[in-house]
Amino acid sequence: MAYPYKKMTADDFNFIRSVTSPERVWVGENIDYDYYKDEMPEYGVFPPELYVEVLNKEEISAIMAYAYKENIPVVCRGAGTGLAGGATCKYGGIMLSVMRMNKIFPVDHKNQTITAQPGALLTDVQAAAAAEGLFYPPDPGEKTASIGGNVITNAGGMKAVRYGLTRDFVRCIEAVMPDGSIMNFSSNVVKNTTGYDVKDLIIGSEGTLCILTQVTLKLLPAPTCTCTLVMPFNSLEECADMVPKVLELPFVPTAIEFLERELIDIVERTLHKYFPVKQGEAVLIVMYDASSRQELDSAVTAAAEAALANGALDCCIAGTPERAASVWEVRGGILEGMKADSVAQEECDVVVPRARIAEYVKAAKTIALSHGIRVEPCGHCGDGNIHTELLRSENMSDEEWKKATHASLTELYALSKKLGGQLSGEHGIGNGRIEFLEEFAGPRMIRLYKAIKLAFDDKLILNPGKIIEFNK
Amino acid sequence: MAYPYKKMTADDFNFIRSVTSPERVWVGENIDYDYYKDEMPEYGVFPPELYVEVLNKEEISAIMAYAYKENIPVVCRGAGTGLAGGATCKYGGIMLSVMRMNKIFPVDHKNQTITAQPGALLTDVQAAAAAEGLFYPPDPGEKTASIGGNVITNAGGMKAVRYGLTRDFVRCIEAVMPDGSIMNFSSNVVKNTTGYDVKDLIIGSEGTLCILTQVTLKLLPAPTCTCTLVMPFNSLEECADMVPKVLELPFVPTAIEFLERELIDIVERTLHKYFPVKQGEAVLIVMYDASSRQELDSAVTAAAEAALANGALDCCIAGTPERAASVWEVRGGILEGMKADSVAQEECDVVVPRARIAEYVKAAKTIALSHGIRVEPCGHCGDGNIHTELLRSENMSDEEWKKATHASLTELYALSKKLGGQLSGEHGIGNGRIEFLEEFAGPRMIRLYKAIKLAFDDKLILNPGKIIEFNK
Repeated sequence: MAYPYKKMTADDFNFIRSVTSPERVWVGENIDYDYYKDEMPEYGVFPPELYVEVLNKEEISAIMAYAYKENIPVVCRGAGTGLAGGATCKYGGIMLSVMRMNKIFPVDHKNQTITAQPGALLTDVQAAAAAEGLFYPPDPGEKTASIGGNVITNAGGMKAVRYGLTRDFVRCIEAVMPDGSIMNFSSNVVKNTTGYDVKDLIIGSEGTLCILTQVTLKLLPAPTCTCTLVMPFNSLEECADMVPKVLELPFVPTAIEFLERELIDIVERTLHKYFPVKQGEAVLIVMYDASSRQELDSAVTAAAEAALANGALDCCIAGTPERAASVWEVRGGILEGMKADSVAQEECDVVVPRARIAEYVKAAKTIALSHGIRVEPCGHCGDGNIHTELLRSENMSDEEWKKATHASLTELYALSKKLGGQLSGEHGIGNGRIEFLEEFAGPRMIRLYKAIKLAFDDKLILNPGKIIEFNK
Repeated sequence: MAYPYKKMTADDFNFIRSVTSPERVWVGENIDYDYYKDEMPEYGVFPPELYVEVLNKEEISAIMAYAYKENIPVVCRGAGTGLAGGATCKYGGIMLSVMRMNKIFPVDHKNQTITAQPGALLTDVQAAAAAEGLFYPPDPGEKTASIGGNVITNAGGMKAVRYGLTRDFVRCIEAVMPDGSIMNFSSNVVKNTTGYDVKDLIIGSEGTLCILTQVTLKLLPAPTCTCTLVMPFNSLEECADMVPKVLELPFVPTAIEFLERELIDIVERTLHKYFPVKQGEAVLIVMYDASSRQELDSAVTAAAEAALANGALDCCIAGTPERAASVWEVRGGILEGMKADSVAQEECDVVVPRARIAEYVKAAKTIALSHGIRVEPCGHCGDGNIHTELLRSENMSDEEWKKATHASLTELYALSKKLGGQLSGEHGIGNGRIEFLEEFAGPRMIRLYKAIKLAFDDKLILNPGKIIEFNK
């Protein structure tokens, strides 16, 4: 089975309408262009043959059982905010949106968890927890993402330093398998050694193994106060060397980001958002949150002392919400600033060992420049996930840009590998990084990935051609 | 291939000797009886055909490539302290000990990690971290376990409440695949979305997917002070109801255990270790550790106030090491006490949602008693992992004991499932719980487990007949 897939017929359309509802099914040219792509159309624009908005797991199960029998590919879609070309119908077939499955169940205080359907928005899940005095920490940059999308891509974000990733908060998953089976992976328990850890394999599998229908997430007591510190340094190396020193302090920071002056200048120039600290070629931004003012104060004092003892030109304590906002607005404006400052962008999302950050950043600039591309690395210094934005200048032709980005990415991934890093820290592989993954992981790992994919999806009907490509 | 496996010949023995060294190979009756079983001989006693102590990954790779070609099963062995009948040669073949691969590399301060070979002891890894002012939190009861065994079984322990499981500390794994390939799963990075999360699938796979040759573990800044609280209650229900109240306080406790008076009496009677708190039918033991005395004091005060406001008869603060020791010695003596108080034991290691602990314990006693068995549940109240020890009395025949434990376990697992729990919280499936897992997980999940096993081990030569059984 698998390639080539069945081209859908009127009978197929009617079947999907019959197990859902005609007003929730669109076909052919009636499908909105938005559903042809995610936030990175560069990684593929593919029209679905049918687009359906499902209401429950039974509908998903019926659609999958049918698609399995008929050899029709199915792609599950959340909010479509992915950055890897993941949620697209590369081989046509059905796009199945779970955005109407957006129920959030009441917080379970005894188990300190919250359960939601995949289409619930991350912000709504965070707000539902906060309304009950609890805290869902994962905080990827994209606020309009769905919680299902966050789980299936293992969304990261800058608070990973203290709290970890989406993975670390997923207690259990309910999902539909490619053959239509509805299954539960783990349950609302803290520990589990019952069979293979399939739950963690599913998290981050980018919709290629099963379709999420419900997730239960761990919550924490909410911190009550927060403080941001800005530490300017004369050089990026000094800035990066400060990271392990901050992490060795008794109190673990929530976030550690870095910005180079060049990037601050871009944001100030293009967005007119002004960074409160004018000194330093590179700044480290450290955020603490705590459950008491006392605890916060001692964390902040210790970090400030460590900064000044290790070459920081200053240590600005942004203790008020306004002052902290002026820092985080510049950090949050980076992507927008770079977009305003260039014709197009290509993104490299490597993660390297924390000890190798400065080395990576320096070498990345040299690599990109050797291909005539300006590059602005920035990001999560606390976890080594450096978003390396390649910026297209006006005078580059399409062909030049394509060639230069491909050559740069090839070298950047090789650099990351050499430094003990990985290809993607949080954005995933999707359709955009398959070729690079093959090179990075090597043939034996790709063979293992394929075997794992087949263990779940023997007919290759679920989000085919993502992460790995069989059709060659 | 697979069943039946090749019976090993003198040629096979000589080949293994040639790729290792004759003085590290034992065959047939020269193999020590210890290697026929783990800590639970009840779950199977199986003689290996050959026992070899390897020194490096190249030897393991050579042995696996040969075994793969020749269809010889291989079982990797760590310290042999497992409780599920996992590290045994159920189908004969090779037992491969990694206990001579026990190197611990210097702490990597910049990345805050430690790297060790699988045969290093957990205690030695903990000590190596502590010597550098850092902290490896996972703390399963068994101190003589190997770190590889801890990783491959995802060892738990009582500090999971605050710090999580072994899984949460594994940065990356180097392993040999059944065909002899040497592979790396992730690297020393904090985040990773590069392909499928194979690393987490391997953790807890009980030696059925690959053989670990090196692990890199995350460390934390070491806490500097600790305090234990004992909260006696009139009933188990009140005791269990206190758990979510403790967890809602701003400061997360390191451990929350519970003991019923009956069990304390057994330890006091059999081991002459005396519990410092005499009141209450059930006691909650809460441990905090912190990075400052100030922080610790406010955590302890808040917990004590919450206890007294929620029905605790008292709240004993064991602030000195001696006083804390008197609490933890009784907790630590439970298994020994029960062994002294019964002819034999069978263990049930379910984990239930924290909200259902009291319900489970009550019902578990009723179930066991209905089959004429005394049961003493105890354990990790903070994570719902209740070790339910079935105790054999003197007047039971072998046949009666076998029948009664089987009937009790069947009902206990069904009870756990009904309450939203799992079959095993931390001891795993091994050979001892396969039959129960099949019932618990259901045929579709077992089919998925089998497909996953085959994705790694298409010839079924690695620790066959554990977790799942193909040979039926």
